[in-house]
Amino acid sequence: MIRLLVTGGTFDKEYDEIGGTLFFKDTHLQEMLRLGRSRLDVAVETVMLIDSLQMSAADRARVAERCRDCAETQIVVTHGTDTMIETAAVLAGGVPGKTIVLTGAMIPYAFGSSDGLFNLGSALSFVQVLPPGVYVAMNGTHFPWNHVRKNRALGYFENA
Amino acid sequence: MIRLLVTGGTFDKEYDEIGGTLFFKDTHLQEMLRLGRSRLDVAVETVMLIDSLQMSAADRARVAERCRDCAETQIVVTHGTDTMIETAAVLAGGVPGKTIVLTGAMIPYAFGSSDGLFNLGSALSFVQVLPPGVYVAMNGTHFPWNHVRKNRALGYFENA
Amino acid sequence: MIRLLVTGGTFDKEYDEIGGTLFFKDTHLQEMLRLGRSRLDVAVETVMLIDSLQMSAADRARVAERCRDCAETQIVVTHGTDTMIETAAVLAGGVPGKTIVLTGAMIPYAFGSSDGLFNLGSALSFVQVLPPGVYVAMNGTHFPWNHVRKNRALGYFENA
Amino acid sequence: MIRLLVTGGTFDKEYDEIGGTLFFKDTHLQEMLRLGRSRLDVAVETVMLIDSLQMSAADRARVAERCRDCAETQIVVTHGTDTMIETAAVLAGGVPGKTIVLTGAMIPYAFGSSDGLFNLGSALSFVQVLPPGVYVAMNGTHFPWNHVRKNRALGYFENA
Repeated sequence: MIRLLVTGGTFDKEYDEIGGTLFFKDTHLQEMLRLGRSRLDVAVETVMLIDSLQMSAADRARVAERCRDCAETQIVVTHGTDTMIETAAVLAGGVPGKTIVLTGAMIPYAFGSSDGLFNLGSALSFVQVLPPGVYVAMNGTHFPWNHVRKNRALGYFENA
Repeated sequence: MIRLLVTGGTFDKEYDEIGGTLFFKDTHLQEMLRLGRSRLDVAVETVMLIDSLQMSAADRARVAERCRDCAETQIVVTHGTDTMIETAAVLAGGVPGKTIVLTGAMIPYAFGSSDGLFNLGSALSFVQVLPPGVYVAMNGTHFPWNHVRKNRALGYFENA
Repeated sequence: MIRLLVTGGTFDKEYDEIGGTLFFKDTHLQEMLRLGRSRLDVAVETVMLIDSLQMSAADRARVAERCRDCAETQIVVTHGTDTMIETAAVLAGGVPGKTIVLTGAMIPYAFGSSDGLFNLGSALSFVQVLPPGVYVAMNGTHFPWNHVRKNRALGYFENA
Repeated sequence: MIRLLVTGGTFDKEYDEIGGTLFFKDTHLQEMLRLGRSRLDVAVETVMLIDSLQMSAADRARVAERCRDCAETQIVVTHGTDTMIETAAVLAGGVPGKTIVLTGAMIPYAFGSSDGLFNLGSALSFVQVLPPGVYVAMNGTHFPWNHVRKNRALGYFENA
């Protein structure tokens, strides 16, 4: 069984047509798993729904705690891309013996042209076959948490 | 580098608005890689664009030949789901020493609600980490070619 | 109040992922009205869900009967484009004193890239302002039922 | 011939995946006309691409000037919904003898679930049949410019 921890990020942002702004309502992960015809045994758990620029040390500790405390040893974490690597470092320090894959999206799933479904398929696949450790799965690639950086100008992840 | 061999299947079907039928025009794989923000080094090659129910033994031999002859050792094959396993068996018998992942879609990519992007992300991820062999990547799972069947009544792949 | 009579046509076709064919399940018209944020008082009634090439004289008589018998004098009929004009002629002969606008789609609404939402907005607008008579609303234009033909080679309606 | 004046608004907003904000790049109106299979003779002209909350008196005067100066007597103006009625009032005061229909969208067209295509079909239809005057076409309805208000809490237009 795979644990899927939702923290928010662009993945789950929606457009608020009254205010004309982006916001969070509910996670789209269950809908995405249905769309992908996933037959995996996945337990989806929303830990928080926030922009990763708003994520505090306490928030990251809470994600680490959920990773440690859940029964599953294969964990996917959906996360905003801006501070994904900071959270990955916290998980690497605090959750031994599990395979944890963080992923996100550059475009909200609800906007139709998102990379989210591709990234979700990728993260769920990597988590089933990689050895214990913490990884980022973006742009079709898996990066060890300590050898990756986000290229903010171009919007993709690369080796570091 | 990854070789991506396109053979058609539901993945690439489109709606012909003049005739009201489904047909093939071009592959959507390049567009899907862009949408997924893939940064992988992928060589896309259209071997054929057909419904897998139309695929002949000669067609399967041609796919096997392309798998053998290309320089890459990581190969993804997009394929109609109906005879994906037959082609997988031919590849298993004829292409030693490479990691080959076949994938497909239940809904055409062009129809908006497709599982194709999820499956593509999944297949490209599995092909990078699985040992040499022939696999089917569908429904979030990878199956060895000789331990999988399509459940035609329910439309998904399962262990066999 | 506007009566919206659903007869099927490309508008409401869906892709059957088990059989790989196109079929009818339910009308999408209520969903389309929600998507268009319509605030019109529209009574949606599914008269039949068929391809207009399958429509018999009895079917057309039934549509005419529903147009005659309903209380509303503004009626939109969704219809396959292939025989839309034949049905329009039957309505012109059998339903006096009402404004009836037939519309359809070249691409199923469910496929994401449909002209259906544009045509629905157009038909609902024309029906509110045109004098009694029977019209076809396609391609942004309204045509009197007896001065229109479908250009089958190019897939649009034109003056005749 | 119909003149279509683009001023921006939610209609044409896009998601900037680098900055995570909404912005304007190009108008989507030509693409929307293609999607709607419009065969109307429409001259699309981008006057400005701004959020209507940013629209100044000078901007509105410029829209009025383009309405007056163009050869066409049927004009559709795409506009943000927040100040659509203010612009309509300026046009009513400054552009006599033409049929002008303002329309907009609650959701950006690029986000897939937009009301924009419905509203465009509606506005283009109303402009062909309404007598000279200035109208708002939203929610399937046409409102004379001086008998409409936007219900900001609920996000739709209503009689006033």
